[in-house]
Amino acid sequence: MHFTEPLPLRSGKLLHEYTLTYETYGTLNADRSNAVLVCHALNASHHVAGTYEGQAKSEGWWDNLIGPGKPLDTDQFFVIGVNNLGSCFGSTGPMQTDASTGAAYGADFPVVTVEDWVDSQARLLDRLGINQLAAVLGGSLGGMQALSWSLQYPTRLRHCVAVATAPNLSAQNIAFNKVARRAIVTDPDFHGGHFYAQGVLPRRGLRVARMIGHITYLSDDAMEAKFGRDMKAAEPAYSTQDVEFEIESYLRHQGDKFSDYFDANTYLLITRALDYFDPARHFGGDLSATFARAVCKFQLVSFSTDWRFSPERSREIVKALLDNKLDVSYAEIDAPHGHDAFLLDDARYHGVLRACFDNIARELAHTSAQVGRLATSTAAGSSSRDIELIAQMVPTGSRVLDLGCGNGELLAHLRQHRLCTGYGVELNDANLLTCVKRGVNVIQLNLEDGLATFADQSFDVVLQLDTMQHLRNTERMLTETARVGRTGIVSFPNFAHWPNRLSVVRGRMPVTKALPYEWYDTPNLRVGTFADFEQLARKLSLKVLDAYGIQNGAPIRNWPNLRASVAVFSFERRGSQGRLGKR
Amino acid sequence: MHFTEPLPLRSGKLLHEYTLTYETYGTLNADRSNAVLVCHALNASHHVAGTYEGQAKSEGWWDNLIGPGKPLDTDQFFVIGVNNLGSCFGSTGPMQTDASTGAAYGADFPVVTVEDWVDSQARLLDRLGINQLAAVLGGSLGGMQALSWSLQYPTRLRHCVAVATAPNLSAQNIAFNKVARRAIVTDPDFHGGHFYAQGVLPRRGLRVARMIGHITYLSDDAMEAKFGRDMKAAEPAYSTQDVEFEIESYLRHQGDKFSDYFDANTYLLITRALDYFDPARHFGGDLSATFARAVCKFQLVSFSTDWRFSPERSREIVKALLDNKLDVSYAEIDAPHGHDAFLLDDARYHGVLRACFDNIARELAHTSAQVGRLATSTAAGSSSRDIELIAQMVPTGSRVLDLGCGNGELLAHLRQHRLCTGYGVELNDANLLTCVKRGVNVIQLNLEDGLATFADQSFDVVLQLDTMQHLRNTERMLTETARVGRTGIVSFPNFAHWPNRLSVVRGRMPVTKALPYEWYDTPNLRVGTFADFEQLARKLSLKVLDAYGIQNGAPIRNWPNLRASVAVFSFERRGSQGRLGKR
Repeated sequence: MHFTEPLPLRSGKLLHEYTLTYETYGTLNADRSNAVLVCHALNASHHVAGTYEGQAKSEGWWDNLIGPGKPLDTDQFFVIGVNNLGSCFGSTGPMQTDASTGAAYGADFPVVTVEDWVDSQARLLDRLGINQLAAVLGGSLGGMQALSWSLQYPTRLRHCVAVATAPNLSAQNIAFNKVARRAIVTDPDFHGGHFYAQGVLPRRGLRVARMIGHITYLSDDAMEAKFGRDMKAAEPAYSTQDVEFEIESYLRHQGDKFSDYFDANTYLLITRALDYFDPARHFGGDLSATFARAVCKFQLVSFSTDWRFSPERSREIVKALLDNKLDVSYAEIDAPHGHDAFLLDDARYHGVLRACFDNIARELAHTSAQVGRLATSTAAGSSSRDIELIAQMVPTGSRVLDLGCGNGELLAHLRQHRLCTGYGVELNDANLLTCVKRGVNVIQLNLEDGLATFADQSFDVVLQLDTMQHLRNTERMLTETARVGRTGIVSFPNFAHWPNRLSVVRGRMPVTKALPYEWYDTPNLRVGTFADFEQLARKLSLKVLDAYGIQNGAPIRNWPNLRASVAVFSFERRGSQGRLGKR
Repeated sequence: MHFTEPLPLRSGKLLHEYTLTYETYGTLNADRSNAVLVCHALNASHHVAGTYEGQAKSEGWWDNLIGPGKPLDTDQFFVIGVNNLGSCFGSTGPMQTDASTGAAYGADFPVVTVEDWVDSQARLLDRLGINQLAAVLGGSLGGMQALSWSLQYPTRLRHCVAVATAPNLSAQNIAFNKVARRAIVTDPDFHGGHFYAQGVLPRRGLRVARMIGHITYLSDDAMEAKFGRDMKAAEPAYSTQDVEFEIESYLRHQGDKFSDYFDANTYLLITRALDYFDPARHFGGDLSATFARAVCKFQLVSFSTDWRFSPERSREIVKALLDNKLDVSYAEIDAPHGHDAFLLDDARYHGVLRACFDNIARELAHTSAQVGRLATSTAAGSSSRDIELIAQMVPTGSRVLDLGCGNGELLAHLRQHRLCTGYGVELNDANLLTCVKRGVNVIQLNLEDGLATFADQSFDVVLQLDTMQHLRNTERMLTETARVGRTGIVSFPNFAHWPNRLSVVRGRMPVTKALPYEWYDTPNLRVGTFADFEQLARKLSLKVLDAYGIQNGAPIRNWPNLRASVAVFSFERRGSQGRLGKR
């Protein structure tokens, strides 16, 4: 699509006219609400899904994710793939002719930023008559565009799905980009970026750049598994320049292939756009202040072995979203492939995105999540009746953080019956997926790492049900709970319940309904009694608001230390003004 | 020193004559036994310590470690630094004249390997009249040379001290080297390696190569802490080629500096020597078979954030040494600096090397380790009398593995009084250092990761004293103990000791001498009774050989489950032929 209104760029320059190449998949619905924009990363294009007729290698770059019946289902959604400005795949870029000079732009193509791309994409949507997107989806640099959409056009998207991305590049990321660019610009065939006129291509530089990139896309382990130290020949040739190892051959092949189809100036532009992306820069680096503008819902995904955009970087974004009380779910997929994982099939990853887009589709159809169809098994030690008892302690309309939320049953219950909002924290992949399917906000974090992600007094109630005893850092978790929430509620197995006492008197560790594990393989790393907790609460300056036991689903208020298998405490920080039920 | 006898190289070529440049520090003693050879890494030289007179920047590259009173004390040792063949710092290399042609070697300098370097170093020692080295010390590529010494000339060194090294390069390591070399050889000023004659230098390629190297020497975190996203100017220039970020400026500076003093052909040779190093190649990749030749003692050190030569790679070497029953200690230093850490000051790192070289100096003087001067505090829950009781269970002359060995007191006791040999495993840095000071072999490993480092039935006795209860993987640790040792001996606090029973009957978790921690901050993650263990042993098919309690340092054989605060069991695999005391 051709645009003749000039596009003002962040650099202060104007792009007087330009073309955006795009593809669409599926059908735009009547109220134009089911459009999903897919943003591409470094070397991809508008061709995100499907296969061009008659062309062998024309499969869309995200075809495993996007299509009829796939996680982003084009039977449900109208998917738009757009090629970014500065690219070499159709949209206006350095290889194309600058109308004002009649020559190829080359190195004179203006530097474009992630924000410029998003502006240009917004204009395309204007033309397509799409006011609000159901979602923007992107991975890596595409994820940066998705994030930027939520900041530049907050009300024009309902969901932001950002995979394997970061709020900005780290020093190491910039360093790799720098080296790649140096390799290109010092190639004598680069001619200061005006090589088209010379009839040459700076292939050597592009090859080196691509080789560096490829190393950073793969995890160390994945590269080792694929290539190891395999050699081309049985014996080394003892040469400094021959290709001796398979990994050398692979990199060389990747470099050669890339230098055949990619443009050097585009490579410089795109890596620079990556370098410059830093929406928090104008907020003194404060990412939470940056996201104050955002209103959409977020789904973030990272991969454990991605050392280019590590999970830590996604967690920074999660924290900023939480600080702004935005809806967010976050999955940290334990995949071996490194950064490349975002393009690969992984059942857990695709499962989370499928659940996410299913929810968006239902939201569009104004139907609620499939709660009824979900399994409702609960964690060992707590029953549905226990959950109902504890739910009654949570004031209507509370903002709740459920630490160790399991399959999200309690959060869903609180949302439905007590109009609560909030988040669960869960480590287990299957539980996480169930939460996403329920439409419950869930953050995949290890509670042993603490609650630094959550701001002071940012919740009315923080729940730690059947969770505390699984964690080593008991004291820290309790003080953190009281820091993050106005009220904390914990439940845990009471070791002083009389059958347990009896077992110990007989010289054996107990195995009961509330303590169903053998001493040597229990997830319970902390074993305490109702009475022990009272003393710990005093030590930690926690003011106990209520305390009782639960036995067979019934509250026990007389002699709970003896008579109840489960202990329940609600508490707040001593000197705190908040009270349960008063806000 | 000039050599006229030709040196046969691994490539099959001969180096007809050559010069090795070297420096020495300290004084060779009368029996020529105190020499330590220091091997250099990629861009260093023979100038390892001291400062040349009148030159500003002539400090030796390892001057913080080597000198009078330093960890490698030149008042005690005669230290030799030698420049490797192929280098550009004095020894024969590509920049020097090939006598047979009268021109500079350039790209015709033969490919040299780590093994070739070690051969040449051995010839230097012949000339210096040194038959056996007290130690070979090296870091990174220097560590590879130290390892290779132990394989090529097993009896010519007493100790191998290898820091931040690997048994070979990983695919990722080779990949980075490949890219660096591509950058050099595709620089038009390289002229196929014969650039000297052209009066030019392939500076652009060398710069890119050095920039890539520098990224891999630093940890991501260290680079972030040092540079982050700091920019040269307040506002971006929006340019693809300007230096905008501090990290770009730093890398460019490093690249420029390097290209001023380093030779491109040397860079190719040295990275190729790294690629080729793989002593296990001729043993089908079996590193344990490879080290069957070695006889010296080993001290290995790695750094937690080193992603170039990660701790995992050092652990591979440790395993191979253990499989050959060689003396080895291994320290895994939790340092933030990445691979560069091996050149930096870190108190724990230098402490371990100081203790190591102190022991070597004492060994030369035929004096024993300073056991008397060391603190003899033991882990909570066990007393010296407990240790003596348990020591009596270990047959004289046993090969012992002590899991969670603390400060090594028991191992030292067993060595001194019962002529035992073996290793301790310990995670704590201070305990590790005390073990090294005692001259006890100690391996820094996390027992939660299992015992894969240790071969089947490789020890007579495996001890797990006051350790089992701190680990989550109780069952795995017990079966692994019985796999690795003919006999296992465990001790742990007995929860059924009567004061504990009394406390629970009163509704509180016990705090006693044997269980001195509060339930919420105890390192004891597993709480069991004497009677519980009997049942677990049955479940795991462990045959209990002996079982008793300990109370106040005395053995309790009647009613131990009630009367003893500590439980002790020795066991073996059911069906195993070994018996305690019979071999």
